[in-house]
Amino acid sequence: MAAPRERPGPRSAPSLRGLPGTDRAAEFGRWKAQCLGRADLSRKGRVDEGAAGLVQLLNGREQYFTTSSCAGRIVLLDGGINGFEVQKQNCCWLLVTHKPCVKDDVIAALKKANGDAILKFEPLVLHVQCRQLQDAQILHSVAIDSGFRNSGITVGKRGKTMLAVRSTHGLEVPLSHKGKLMVTEEYIDFLLKIANQKMEENKKRIERFYNCLQHALEKETITNSHAKEKIKDKNNSSYTHKKKRNPEAACGKCITEENAKECENDDDPGMSVTIFPEDY
Amino acid sequence: MAAPRERPGPRSAPSLRGLPGTDRAAEFGRWKAQCLGRADLSRKGRVDEGAAGLVQLLNGREQYFTTSSCAGRIVLLDGGINGFEVQKQNCCWLLVTHKPCVKDDVIAALKKANGDAILKFEPLVLHVQCRQLQDAQILHSVAIDSGFRNSGITVGKRGKTMLAVRSTHGLEVPLSHKGKLMVTEEYIDFLLKIANQKMEENKKRIERFYNCLQHALEKETITNSHAKEKIKDKNNSSYTHKKKRNPEAACGKCITEENAKECENDDDPGMSVTIFPEDY
Repeated sequence: MAAPRERPGPRSAPSLRGLPGTDRAAEFGRWKAQCLGRADLSRKGRVDEGAAGLVQLLNGREQYFTTSSCAGRIVLLDGGINGFEVQKQNCCWLLVTHKPCVKDDVIAALKKANGDAILKFEPLVLHVQCRQLQDAQILHSVAIDSGFRNSGITVGKRGKTMLAVRSTHGLEVPLSHKGKLMVTEEYIDFLLKIANQKMEENKKRIERFYNCLQHALEKETITNSHAKEKIKDKNNSSYTHKKKRNPEAACGKCITEENAKECENDDDPGMSVTIFPEDY
Repeated sequence: MAAPRERPGPRSAPSLRGLPGTDRAAEFGRWKAQCLGRADLSRKGRVDEGAAGLVQLLNGREQYFTTSSCAGRIVLLDGGINGFEVQKQNCCWLLVTHKPCVKDDVIAALKKANGDAILKFEPLVLHVQCRQLQDAQILHSVAIDSGFRNSGITVGKRGKTMLAVRSTHGLEVPLSHKGKLMVTEEYIDFLLKIANQKMEENKKRIERFYNCLQHALEKETITNSHAKEKIKDKNNSSYTHKKKRNPEAACGKCITEENAKECENDDDPGMSVTIFPEDY
């Protein structure tokens, strides 16, 4: 689930720093065309069905493009025999599914394990390159409000701005040691019910993200076109009274009862807290 | 482990946007003094021993202050009986430890469970408020290079810039259902060995982070003082030849064999990848 590290060399990675707005936009557009025109480098060679709507929505907007995505999945890995640190290079993928999973599939896959097998549920991960920081901020705000609370922005040395969309919502369970199963079949059944429920919840969050994003981008478009009109009006030296807008409303706050209820550390006995001086 | 949401009201949260550099720095300094002067709002009321060095290093620099921290811990939660989504408000903390944990402690704590108990290992989480984006970028780069690969920047609507330091390095294992233990004592013993190893690895990453940060901040100080000297020299209309510096080296790249080996998705069959056009 790590960010891919394809590096086609410095020629295709000019610095965005210090470029004027229009040049930066043109440079970003060139990157985008170049990146989306290339082959999908994943083994599967295409975007997961569960993330396709979101990816399409983002790539349809001039200020974004996705560089990697995984809709969410249940995986069974056969790790090294020291188990504690899964090295993806040294481990074997016994099972990968983006759909709900039944006990028999896992039991069958576990027969091939000869190291320390681990069952994981991994929620949506999405990497989105953004034209400028403000575009990343809007997307970040929507992601957080939709339940992807471990999302964060990366700003590269040369000004490349990425948003990684991540959830807190995982599962990582060691199942066998040196090829020996450490749990019962009844436990695997119980575990898969939880993993499948997490997958269902992940799907809901993706839908919420899609809807909130659509809403935020529409508001953003309206705000931008109003701003352009104002500039036009100013340039024409005529003033038209416009309805006052709240710019903060453009961030598409779609807080539902579901995510408002989510875990906070108000009651968290292990977290040292000084203060957060401002809502962000 | 969520970001705390203390909101002392808009009076203490003036906008940093559009402020000139010196005003922004002064405003940031006032926030910092105010925040660090307040009581620690966590139950424990103090910073975890394992994170104290890092917190002290950051708070000793004018461009940073920490707003919350957890050094890493093993927790046993008694969740609701639907298990799949732990709501911290509705769950009971059966055990919290920042030190390695033995089977008997967990077995004893599990006796109090009457819902769905879950054992988790949670690595370091640190929230750091940064004076400006560039300060967050340096800290982010050091965090990633030290193994905290899920770290990310948040930029608020009013310009508040935070870095959340997070690791990919967790464990989340359901142990009981409606009060009934679903695994053997032998499994709990096996699981705790893995959790304790992860705690040890987390400690190493914190040490690596501390060392890399110290190194990066020293380089940053030298770079800044050279830049100031250059301005001074320019203002005095005299030119002194200075040794050429590589500004990119200031980011304190401390890539060790350990984290260079870490999991990448080169071999990841579930991740759709288009491209990352630039190293970041």
